[in-house]
Amino acid sequence: MRTPMTAVEIAEGLEKLKGWKADDDRSLTRELKFADHNEAIGFVVRVAMAAEVLDHHPDLRIVYNRVELVLSTHDAGGVTAKDFDLAQRINGLLRP
Amino acid sequence: MRTPMTAVEIAEGLEKLKGWKADDDRSLTRELKFADHNEAIGFVVRVAMAAEVLDHHPDLRIVYNRVELVLSTHDAGGVTAKDFDLAQRINGLLRP
Amino acid sequence: MRTPMTAVEIAEGLEKLKGWKADDDRSLTRELKFADHNEAIGFVVRVAMAAEVLDHHPDLRIVYNRVELVLSTHDAGGVTAKDFDLAQRINGLLRP
Amino acid sequence: MRTPMTAVEIAEGLEKLKGWKADDDRSLTRELKFADHNEAIGFVVRVAMAAEVLDHHPDLRIVYNRVELVLSTHDAGGVTAKDFDLAQRINGLLRP
Repeated sequence: MRTPMTAVEIAEGLEKLKGWKADDDRSLTRELKFADHNEAIGFVVRVAMAAEVLDHHPDLRIVYNRVELVLSTHDAGGVTAKDFDLAQRINGLLRP
Repeated sequence: MRTPMTAVEIAEGLEKLKGWKADDDRSLTRELKFADHNEAIGFVVRVAMAAEVLDHHPDLRIVYNRVELVLSTHDAGGVTAKDFDLAQRINGLLRP
Repeated sequence: MRTPMTAVEIAEGLEKLKGWKADDDRSLTRELKFADHNEAIGFVVRVAMAAEVLDHHPDLRIVYNRVELVLSTHDAGGVTAKDFDLAQRINGLLRP
Repeated sequence: MRTPMTAVEIAEGLEKLKGWKADDDRSLTRELKFADHNEAIGFVVRVAMAAEVLDHHPDLRIVYNRVELVLSTHDAGGVTAKDFDLAQRINGLLRP
């Protein structure tokens, strides 16, 4: 079993990760708002494709044009480098 | 503003709607489990397409291979015929 | 059966429709290039959602990061206002 | 540069690969017909997710409820084991 990152390590990582939070120090979260459901679903599909490549999957919540993402590494019981990697890739999908 | 369905009306509707519940009498919910994330996302895209046609959108939660659907009619403050219509169409997507 | 638009009518319509062509006067075509397959598929899903709403569907060809769209109205044997409507909506999906 | 498979090798591979053809000995092709556009797009998204994992992508053509898949390994100038691998995975998506 892997060791999860400490609160200090997570805080350091978040300095370079635009838009994400770690309120509970056990997961990374980001909430995004799109123009409409169409754009939100297009984004979710792109996240799913990126997640499959890493074999690491965010929890997703979709409410019309809003998408909530929650990242954690279940077999470590907290946040690991895998979550930061996926979060960075998800941010990369948002570049215009 | 539309009038939401009563608990009795919802219970009657659910008799013909396989797999859905209405624990709080304010929304219809169904939870589905798929083989993997790939199959879950394929289903979510199909739900999104059906929802766009009706211009009525479920709240969706995706956790790896599980998808939770919550249907309610916000401007009625509860469940209406629109929710039953979308729920039936979603069930139709599950037919083999 | 509907009457298809004439070559002159199509040419006039194309003046206001960025990026589309009608080489054969029987269909509207646009080819788009994205950063990668991920972005191309996200776009295709959004096109499919828009198409379902209109119940009018483009032919789609996807080659890695390129997407070719072909629009025509089969029961008119050519281009109609429905094709221009869908083409405008597809262009709307591309706005940053 | 990799060596493409010979016509004999391809023919042997196809014996275990339901639904695929290799008319030109340079690509594997399969055409699928779904109930409607909704089901076709759900399938295309699933193919795209599987393809990203392998970093090997089919050419896709979608005409309403029909999906044409063309697999070849461009840097080998023909068919390789990668194409058979992806074709098997795509077949796996079709299991009920």
